[in-house]
Amino acid sequence: MTRWQPDARERLERAALQLFTEQGFAATTVPEIAARAGLTTRTFFRYFADKREVLFAGNEMPEYATRLMADAPPGLDPLTQILHGLRVVAQSRFDGRKEEMRQWRAIIATDEGLQERDLHKRSALAAAVRDGLLLRGLAPTAAAVLGDTCVTLLHVALDEWLAHDDDRMLFEIVLSTLDSLRASLVVAPAND
Amino acid sequence: MTRWQPDARERLERAALQLFTEQGFAATTVPEIAARAGLTTRTFFRYFADKREVLFAGNEMPEYATRLMADAPPGLDPLTQILHGLRVVAQSRFDGRKEEMRQWRAIIATDEGLQERDLHKRSALAAAVRDGLLLRGLAPTAAAVLGDTCVTLLHVALDEWLAHDDDRMLFEIVLSTLDSLRASLVVAPAND
Repeated sequence: MTRWQPDARERLERAALQLFTEQGFAATTVPEIAARAGLTTRTFFRYFADKREVLFAGNEMPEYATRLMADAPPGLDPLTQILHGLRVVAQSRFDGRKEEMRQWRAIIATDEGLQERDLHKRSALAAAVRDGLLLRGLAPTAAAVLGDTCVTLLHVALDEWLAHDDDRMLFEIVLSTLDSLRASLVVAPAND
Repeated sequence: MTRWQPDARERLERAALQLFTEQGFAATTVPEIAARAGLTTRTFFRYFADKREVLFAGNEMPEYATRLMADAPPGLDPLTQILHGLRVVAQSRFDGRKEEMRQWRAIIATDEGLQERDLHKRSALAAAVRDGLLLRGLAPTAAAVLGDTCVTLLHVALDEWLAHDDDRMLFEIVLSTLDSLRASLVVAPAND
């Protein structure tokens, strides 16, 4: 047994990402991941239920969103609240980690089960944001549509951020994606 | 062998929905569905790969969206195009079938695999709308965000439509959901 490792989770995640990238998701085993991280298989299972979870568990976005929304100052309008959450997430989880995120995306794209898990996580994040807005008194339809839109803004912006090698921060792109959405929604009459 | 049945697909779908509702998705077999529809198992497999697919294949929404978008008159702005598609879908696929849709939703809620398939179908629909908008010259980010938003409007409106027993048509609720989204997006400043 190794002694307690304060950074064990991050080391396991990094090791898994490396191995999945080098030799594929299907071909990689949990003992290989643990060995690459310099830890035991038993330590691996203290943090993750299986090798799939190592790609998702570090990113407890729904729980994180729930906490962020509960901690926001009262009286903020819903969009300001969502933008605040998106900024915190963009800066703390994504900026400076573009290469890692690209590797992550590339691995997800190789496996249908991983894609389903990714969609499930997005849906859970939308539901968490919706529930947070409901708790703060927003009407159900407005909360549901904003929950979904929050996830849309994050993921469309992420795609653009990952597709370019410029220096833009992710949150800048979230804001320009929001501008694009606003512009698209005011063009047409309400009925055709 | 029964002779060719022009309405075989619909009869199989109706029979499956009845049986899944009566005795559960897991407990129902393909031969039972075929028998309830008065058709053979072989006929079932001419239309559907498995009993899961009978819940989804009748609703070829992504292909339908692609066709709708390709057939739209040139020069329509993107939102008008999307609203046109949502109106056609609401009227032709949903209005007048509320009970059936409620049964469908209730069955999906009982099985994690069905929920994943549903999320996958939503994601495929968003991608089809995005691709249709790209083909018509919209910029990638605008197309992606509108593709997602189209699916959001449909599904949030569907939830509200299914939750009430009033006489509103689905498309009316799509339009009020859009109004709600517009209102939510103009409240806040672009940066906080």
